[in-house]
Amino acid sequence: MSSRRYLGVILLFFTLNLWGQTKTIAERLGYASDAKLLIIHADDLAVAHSEDAASFDALDKKAVTSASIMIPCPWLSEVASYAIKHPDADLGLHLTLTSEWKTYRWGPVESKDKVPSLFDAAGYLWPETAPAAQALKADEVERELRAQIERAVAVGIHPTHLDSHMGVLFARPDLFAVYVKVAHEYKLPFLAALAPDTPAAFRSQLSGNDIVLDSVIVANPSVPAGDWSNFYTAAIRGLKPGLTEIIVHLGYDDRELQSVMVDHPDYGAAWRQRDYNTMTSTQFQKTLEENHVILIKWKDLKTLLK
Amino acid sequence: MSSRRYLGVILLFFTLNLWGQTKTIAERLGYASDAKLLIIHADDLAVAHSEDAASFDALDKKAVTSASIMIPCPWLSEVASYAIKHPDADLGLHLTLTSEWKTYRWGPVESKDKVPSLFDAAGYLWPETAPAAQALKADEVERELRAQIERAVAVGIHPTHLDSHMGVLFARPDLFAVYVKVAHEYKLPFLAALAPDTPAAFRSQLSGNDIVLDSVIVANPSVPAGDWSNFYTAAIRGLKPGLTEIIVHLGYDDRELQSVMVDHPDYGAAWRQRDYNTMTSTQFQKTLEENHVILIKWKDLKTLLK
Repeated sequence: MSSRRYLGVILLFFTLNLWGQTKTIAERLGYASDAKLLIIHADDLAVAHSEDAASFDALDKKAVTSASIMIPCPWLSEVASYAIKHPDADLGLHLTLTSEWKTYRWGPVESKDKVPSLFDAAGYLWPETAPAAQALKADEVERELRAQIERAVAVGIHPTHLDSHMGVLFARPDLFAVYVKVAHEYKLPFLAALAPDTPAAFRSQLSGNDIVLDSVIVANPSVPAGDWSNFYTAAIRGLKPGLTEIIVHLGYDDRELQSVMVDHPDYGAAWRQRDYNTMTSTQFQKTLEENHVILIKWKDLKTLLK
Repeated sequence: MSSRRYLGVILLFFTLNLWGQTKTIAERLGYASDAKLLIIHADDLAVAHSEDAASFDALDKKAVTSASIMIPCPWLSEVASYAIKHPDADLGLHLTLTSEWKTYRWGPVESKDKVPSLFDAAGYLWPETAPAAQALKADEVERELRAQIERAVAVGIHPTHLDSHMGVLFARPDLFAVYVKVAHEYKLPFLAALAPDTPAAFRSQLSGNDIVLDSVIVANPSVPAGDWSNFYTAAIRGLKPGLTEIIVHLGYDDRELQSVMVDHPDYGAAWRQRDYNTMTSTQFQKTLEENHVILIKWKDLKTLLK
């Protein structure tokens, strides 16, 4: 799930890459300078079997180029098994500091007494971005991020990138600093975009070698269910030259996912089925072709890191 | 899941109550001395939504009298919500020291660095009873059992009894001692039965006030799928006077449960659907009536504790 808060944060970040690379990312990857590069990215792997099954299917069909995994979640072993059998799959880590559903929850990977600011009274990760952003201690977050990366590697996953579940790591400059620091250490590209009004406290964490996206697109609760396909078609038609990521959440609208996401229509089971249906449709494939979109993966970006 | 090992352990325990109560449990509960008392008990609540849904349905239909909850499992919040809405539901704690499925796993409730003997290299509870019984340190088990009970209470569950997932707490006298000690402290009845050859190291943990079952019945992998109903009918017809528990595992044979229990037909999704079908059948209800079985709950037994 990416909550409304997440969306708000992400939208803050749409825009220009202000770093002074002499060549665009497209050029550095061997494309024309005005190429429209797109990552189609499935979030939330490992949250539920239904999510995994739909995301694996979309990855197999190349309907999405990349995905990221929630390491503290119960279905990690299923995703690790897929990762081992599909070494070319572009799988990153959806660094997770929240446990947002009502009937179904998870805790941190790190030993609890080393990260007490990470969880609520019931011993699970915070249910929302806001209380998490209020309570989290940056040093404990750093410990947990490392634990998540180490567990991913231990179960056989070779992450291609990092991003942040529900945008928690974009909620405070010191959390963003931890995110960037850990990504640098593990030599992984990470999801970041800048808006003209992004505070210097965030900007100053980035180095000239970091890859910054020009735009990030996520469906939001204002999109009517019947307009789902139109929303994505319009997004593709409106793509500008540069590097864009479309973030989707794929799942089947089945009993498991309905139960995980009970009482939560935003980013819920039907939402995820609509995302799956749209991404795997021939119409969407055709729209991508007609608009000369070049699909890339995070591992392509990883090759650009010095 | 109760593995074959669990079955072996449970069968060791069928038999007479050797404690010198002057009255039988039936008499103490106000029934004839030769009454056939039966608890029909659903294990493994909180392991999966499918398990919860089938078990709640069977509890609501009074097809089972009691159930027990796996506190470290992801769906605990769903079960806690049911428990709060159904204060009369007879819900105990299925004390959990294993995480036995392949694609879907969980860790301890206690902070990991306080219970290092409880988990495997991936940070989850041991997958089988045997390695658990080899590795577990009794003091760490005690810490974890307390953490499971405390979390249950914290989320609104008032447990009526304790038992042991996959029989881990019946695997060593010192683990059994911890189980009994914690049950005594929390003033909860607990699943225990004795065979003529049960070692003194186990017997000596029990006090005269403890309730010991005369017999425990669990379906086992030698029962053909087509004979499921016959197995339980024969069990009911063969009931002897005294206190018996039938342990069942209820679930729907759906995609979620099939995925949780992948590659594991014993105690798998189809097994659980058969248990559910049999327990909720009118034929099984009729068999109970025809054989003058008195259904009781763990909370009835709890009233007998001094």
